[in-house]
Amino acid sequence: MSDATVHVGLLGCGNVGAALARLVDEHADLITSRAGVPIEITRVAVQDPTRRRDVKLAPERFTTDAAAIVTDPDIDVVVEVIGGVEPARSLITAALAAGKPVITGNKELIAKHGPELFEAAAAAGVDLLFEASVAGGIPLIRPLRESLAGDRIKRVTGIVNGTTNYILTRMTEEGSSFAEALADAQALGYAEADPTADVEGHDAAAKAAIIATVAFGARVRLDDVHTEGITGITDDDIASARLLGYVVKLLAVAEELDGAVAVRVHPAMVPLHHPLAAVRDSFNAVLIEGEAVGELMLYGRGAGGGPTASAVLGDLVDAVRNLAAGGKGATLTGLVDRPIRPIGDSESQFYLFMEVADRPGVLAAIAGEFGRHGVSIQSMEQRGLGADARLVFITHRAREEDLRATLAALGEVDPVHRVGSVLRVTGDVGSEP
Amino acid sequence: MSDATVHVGLLGCGNVGAALARLVDEHADLITSRAGVPIEITRVAVQDPTRRRDVKLAPERFTTDAAAIVTDPDIDVVVEVIGGVEPARSLITAALAAGKPVITGNKELIAKHGPELFEAAAAAGVDLLFEASVAGGIPLIRPLRESLAGDRIKRVTGIVNGTTNYILTRMTEEGSSFAEALADAQALGYAEADPTADVEGHDAAAKAAIIATVAFGARVRLDDVHTEGITGITDDDIASARLLGYVVKLLAVAEELDGAVAVRVHPAMVPLHHPLAAVRDSFNAVLIEGEAVGELMLYGRGAGGGPTASAVLGDLVDAVRNLAAGGKGATLTGLVDRPIRPIGDSESQFYLFMEVADRPGVLAAIAGEFGRHGVSIQSMEQRGLGADARLVFITHRAREEDLRATLAALGEVDPVHRVGSVLRVTGDVGSEP
Repeated sequence: MSDATVHVGLLGCGNVGAALARLVDEHADLITSRAGVPIEITRVAVQDPTRRRDVKLAPERFTTDAAAIVTDPDIDVVVEVIGGVEPARSLITAALAAGKPVITGNKELIAKHGPELFEAAAAAGVDLLFEASVAGGIPLIRPLRESLAGDRIKRVTGIVNGTTNYILTRMTEEGSSFAEALADAQALGYAEADPTADVEGHDAAAKAAIIATVAFGARVRLDDVHTEGITGITDDDIASARLLGYVVKLLAVAEELDGAVAVRVHPAMVPLHHPLAAVRDSFNAVLIEGEAVGELMLYGRGAGGGPTASAVLGDLVDAVRNLAAGGKGATLTGLVDRPIRPIGDSESQFYLFMEVADRPGVLAAIAGEFGRHGVSIQSMEQRGLGADARLVFITHRAREEDLRATLAALGEVDPVHRVGSVLRVTGDVGSEP
Repeated sequence: MSDATVHVGLLGCGNVGAALARLVDEHADLITSRAGVPIEITRVAVQDPTRRRDVKLAPERFTTDAAAIVTDPDIDVVVEVIGGVEPARSLITAALAAGKPVITGNKELIAKHGPELFEAAAAAGVDLLFEASVAGGIPLIRPLRESLAGDRIKRVTGIVNGTTNYILTRMTEEGSSFAEALADAQALGYAEADPTADVEGHDAAAKAAIIATVAFGARVRLDDVHTEGITGITDDDIASARLLGYVVKLLAVAEELDGAVAVRVHPAMVPLHHPLAAVRDSFNAVLIEGEAVGELMLYGRGAGGGPTASAVLGDLVDAVRNLAAGGKGATLTGLVDRPIRPIGDSESQFYLFMEVADRPGVLAAIAGEFGRHGVSIQSMEQRGLGADARLVFITHRAREEDLRATLAALGEVDPVHRVGSVLRVTGDVGSEP
C-alpha cells in the first residue's frame, strides 16, 4: 500500500456496484472508523466507461481493462460484481494469485467453482469472501461460519429467491394465476424478461449449493442439487394448500444425514405455523437448525442494490481489517467430499392432486396402488365435479422412489384421468429430515 | 502456549458452562477443524467443586480459585459465565491485563461497564467477545459489527426477553391473566422464583444498552435506558389489542435521531402484520433497520444452556483463530459519547384505556383535555358497562411529555374514574421513529 488508504478495484458497476460506490462515498467516516483506514474505489472495470452512472467517481477511474486492475500493484482489494462464470473466474483467480483479497457476490461462480477458488485463496493467504452471493443483505455465510462455528448444523431451509416468493405470495393472497403473478413481477422489476433462472429454481439451486458447502464443510456443487421450479404450480394447488392449512413456498433445503449431504430445491407445502410460512413478497429467509442452537431464522431482503451492496461492504470492511492486522486471510478451508444422497432416497410427506372418474370402486383401485408400493395415506379429500372427482391426498412419510413408483402405476389405472401436482409437504421445525 | 492445544479457563459451570463443556467434548473434531487447533477446557472455577455436574471433566480440573485461573500462564483464553458484576468484572480485568482473550455472556456487566472493559481489551491487544450477552444463540453482535459494518443502522427493535414473551403469548392466545401466565412460566422454568428482573424489564434494558452501544458505536449504559415492565398489562389491554389488530409485546428499542441515541424498554402494541408480531412463546427476535440493507430480522432461542453455549463457542473459536493468526484482537474501539434523548422528547402513537361515568358531556370534557395538550386522537371506541363506560383511545403521533400532561389533566376530570393502561403503539417497519 502506497499510503494508509486501501485502494479497491471494482469489477462491474451495475446495480450492486453503483450502490456500493454510493455507500463508500456517503458512509466514508463510518467505514473509516470501522475498517481502521479509509477505503477508496480507485479503479472500476465496466463494458462502457462512457455510460452515465449515478456515482460520484471521476471518469478517469473507469476502464474496460479488468485484467489490468486485478494485477495493478496499486490495487489492494478486488470486488467482483459482474456475475456469471467468465470472465469473473479468470479475473478472481488472477487477483488471488497477485495476493489480493477478493470479495464477490457471484453465486453462479461460487456454486460451480467455489472449492477451487477457496483453495487458490488459501494458497495465496488472502481473504475470499462471498456473503452477498446468498440471500443478498441477510448475513448468512458469516453466522454459519463464525457464530455457529462450534455447533453441528443439521439442516438449513431457505426461501432464497425473491422473485418466486413474490409470485407465490400473489397467487396465495390474491388468487392470481402463475402467469398473472409472473407478469406483475416483471412489471415491478422483480423478474427478468426471461424468468427461467428464477422460476425453474436454478438461482435457488446455486444458493443451496453454497449453503450446503458452508454449513457442512463439504464440496457441494450446483450439479449435486436436485432442482424443481414453480412453473407447474396451479391455482388448485394453492387453494388446496390453503384449505389444508399450508402455503406453497419454493424451498432450498440442505441437510446432513449419516454423513451424507442432501441438497434440493423444490416447491413445498409449508404449515402455516412454520416460521417460513410468514415470509411474504420478495423477502428471503433462512431457517437454520443446529444441534445446540436449536432453530435460528434470518430474514430480510435477498436482492436489490442496497441490501446486496451492504453485504459486499461488510465483507470489504472485514477484508480491510484483516489486511491491516496482517492476518493470513480467511477462506473456506478443509472442505471434504461427502456422499450426496440421491433424491430417490429422500423421505417426505407428499401432497397429490388428481382427477378421476367418479364411479364405484375407483377409490379402492387407487388406494390399492398406494398400498402396493408401501406409501401410506394420511388424509384424503374428494370434491365432486360432474362425472369426475378431484382427489387430494396427503401421504405419511414415504421414500421418494416409492412415491414415484406409485405415480407410474396410477398412470395405468383407467379411471385416473390425470395426476396433477405432486408436492412435498414440509414437516414441523425439528422434525426428522 | 505449551503445545498446539488452546487451554481454556472456564469461570462458572452452571447451565451455560456445562453445556459449553459438553459441546467442546462432543464436537471436538468439528471445533478443531474450524479453530485450526484443538480446544481444551483445562481449568474450571466453581463455588463447590464437589457438586455433581453432567460434564466429562476430571475432578482435578475444578477449583474455587478463579483468580488463579485468570493469571495462570498455562491458560490461553478465559470464558466467563458467572454473571453479575463482581467478581466477574475483576476477573475479566485481570485476565485482559494478563494478555488473555476473554469471552463473556454477562449482559449486566457489559451493560454497566462495557466501555471500560473494551478499552482494557484494546490496550492489551486481545479479544473481548460477548455475543452470548444478548439474545442467547441468535447471532446479533457479529452481524451488527461485521456484516453491517458499512451500513448506517437507524433502529433496532427487539423481543429480547423470553420470559415476558412467553407470559404475553399465554395471555394473548389462552386468555390467561398475568398472574396465571407467570405461574406457568415459573413451573416451566422460564421464570425465576423472583421474576422481577424479567417482568420489570431490567433484563431487557441491559440488552438494549448493549445493542445501542454496538449499533451506534456509542457509550450507552444501563442507566440510559428508559425502562417499563409488563406487570401492569391487563386482560383488557390484551383484548383491546386483539380487537384493534395488534398484539402486546415487550420491546427493546434503540434508535439514532439527529446524532442523539434513544434507548427504551416498554410494552407496546405491535401491528399483527409486523414481523415481530409472530414471535411467540419464549423465542426472541431482533429487527434491524439499516439505511442500505433495509429490514433484517434475526430470530431464535434467546436463552437456555444449548443456544447460549453455542454463541459462547462461536466467540471462542473466533478468539482461538485470532490467537493463531497472531492478530491484535478485536473489540469495540472508538466508542463515542452521544447525547441520550430523554424519553419525554420521544414521539409515538399511544393507546389509552380508561373508565369513565357514562353521562352526557363526558366525552367532550375528555377530548378537550387531549386537544389542550396538543395530542390528537386517531380513533376512539366506547363500550358501555352499566353506569360506567370504558373508553379506548389511540392517538396520532404525540410527544411523550404532552401525553403525560394530558394524563395528569385527565386525572382531575371528575367523570374519569380511572386511567388504566397507557401503551405505546408501534408503527410499521420503516416508519419514522
